[in-house]
Amino acid sequence: LAGIDGPATVRYVDAAGLTDALGDSDALLVWDFASMAVGAVWPAEHRLRWVHVASAGVDRLLFPELLNSDVTLTNSRGIFDRSIAEYVLGLVLLYAKDLATTVRLQDRRSWQHRDTEVISGRDVLVVGAGPIGCHIADLLTSAGMTVRLVARTPRGNVAGIDQLPALLPAADYVVLSAPLTPASRGLLDEAAFGRMKPGARLINVGRGELVEEAALISALREGRIAGAALDVFAAEPLDPSSPLWSLPGVLISPHMSADFIGWHDALAALFVDNFHRWVAGKPLRNVVDKQLGYVPSREVFPS
Amino acid sequence: LAGIDGPATVRYVDAAGLTDALGDSDALLVWDFASMAVGAVWPAEHRLRWVHVASAGVDRLLFPELLNSDVTLTNSRGIFDRSIAEYVLGLVLLYAKDLATTVRLQDRRSWQHRDTEVISGRDVLVVGAGPIGCHIADLLTSAGMTVRLVARTPRGNVAGIDQLPALLPAADYVVLSAPLTPASRGLLDEAAFGRMKPGARLINVGRGELVEEAALISALREGRIAGAALDVFAAEPLDPSSPLWSLPGVLISPHMSADFIGWHDALAALFVDNFHRWVAGKPLRNVVDKQLGYVPSREVFPS
Repeated sequence: LAGIDGPATVRYVDAAGLTDALGDSDALLVWDFASMAVGAVWPAEHRLRWVHVASAGVDRLLFPELLNSDVTLTNSRGIFDRSIAEYVLGLVLLYAKDLATTVRLQDRRSWQHRDTEVISGRDVLVVGAGPIGCHIADLLTSAGMTVRLVARTPRGNVAGIDQLPALLPAADYVVLSAPLTPASRGLLDEAAFGRMKPGARLINVGRGELVEEAALISALREGRIAGAALDVFAAEPLDPSSPLWSLPGVLISPHMSADFIGWHDALAALFVDNFHRWVAGKPLRNVVDKQLGYVPSREVFPS
Repeated sequence: LAGIDGPATVRYVDAAGLTDALGDSDALLVWDFASMAVGAVWPAEHRLRWVHVASAGVDRLLFPELLNSDVTLTNSRGIFDRSIAEYVLGLVLLYAKDLATTVRLQDRRSWQHRDTEVISGRDVLVVGAGPIGCHIADLLTSAGMTVRLVARTPRGNVAGIDQLPALLPAADYVVLSAPLTPASRGLLDEAAFGRMKPGARLINVGRGELVEEAALISALREGRIAGAALDVFAAEPLDPSSPLWSLPGVLISPHMSADFIGWHDALAALFVDNFHRWVAGKPLRNVVDKQLGYVPSREVFPS
């Protein structure tokens, strides 16, 4: 943030130092987007006018005091679209080509040929049609898959979320890239898993709380779905005692789908650009509609 | 092969039964493309007019007696293009997103975040520009990568193999999808590895003998290249004592990149179609130029 140290006084604090710093700051950059600290120590008296968060999801910032204030909230929309889309395609191919088994067999020096799946023509349902969901849909379409998108706000080829139950049965892959809001919490519940096909795999790169974890565990245990690649969890890091680590067809990754080498710099550049807009009194990029819980999207698919 | 049992008398033999069967057959379908048996027992007296092989590569059939005969050789060109291209993209994403490490960490219930690579804009060199190489190039281009193709016969955007030394230094991934012929044997040797960049990864879905294995092992041991995903080997199955199993950055798979669920049926359908052409005296599909060692390609890239 060297580019703004001068016009602004920049202080770097951890959760413990946040209480002191919040009281007399004009703007806050929340680097640890998973932290509950901001909501926990939000002061009654402050002069904050702008909060920026280093992620696309702003769910930790939607506590009532910020929600109902006139503080502007911006996010890092656009930085992670490509990396997450590639990660999702990698997970689809990991499943289709049985590559996790290949890695485990290699560690035992075991040569075991298998016939594997082709992804071309397979059906994907992407839930969430912001820039991340649209990038996922575009990349998977480029790779030959047949993609449907659902979102809260239907538009063009994007179906409304009320179509989710009707669209789930056809999906070979269900990808979650929706923001976590009161409307989307627990979206994949027992009933939703009941509509998925036995060969279907879930890929969650959104937020853990989009899924009812107990319902997911039952569906996996009972073979009602074939797998789940989970990059996000209600509680992170995932507890070593969680049954998810070893359920059949599950791939656990530590909330890393977005984080390409260089993302710190890309994110700082976005923040610095927004800072200069803010100082100049110009409209900020990526202003979150706090009532919706995300930046309203005009993205369409195919792009 | 039910569709031809009637017009023809179909016999199914293994290597041991081949000697007896070859002497009085008109056509031979070689299902085990890796077998040396056909060359080993090829009879001096026979009435064979046509040999079809269940693979794209015909290297095991290029023994002098068949090479210098007027027996027609056909292959299974076109069946495996899509599956191999997807497999290669899966391997690229496995490397870029460090998914093998993720699988191994999961088995230890270990949560270790890593920043990973974006594949968009990375450079790929595909060696071999038949339908398989062209499908690989098209799919990787669709995924945002920058692809160069080299082949024995330059055409359009396909560079001649004499350009290989000049093209190797820029490649983040070098993909081998060339036929194994006297001209391509040992193509990647000590000098070639010396021109690759330290971060480069080799992906071999062609034939093991395209690579000088000792040179590859040295390059991997000394960190002169970053990895190798090997689906094919000079001797298969790979011996459990091979150092390749555990060298850094190596992924071993058991010659399965082509073999999608359903390939037996697709291949049988191709053979039956060719059988009907043969009986009717029409030109066969996929006639191999035995001197070249492959079906001459008119494929271009981008398609």
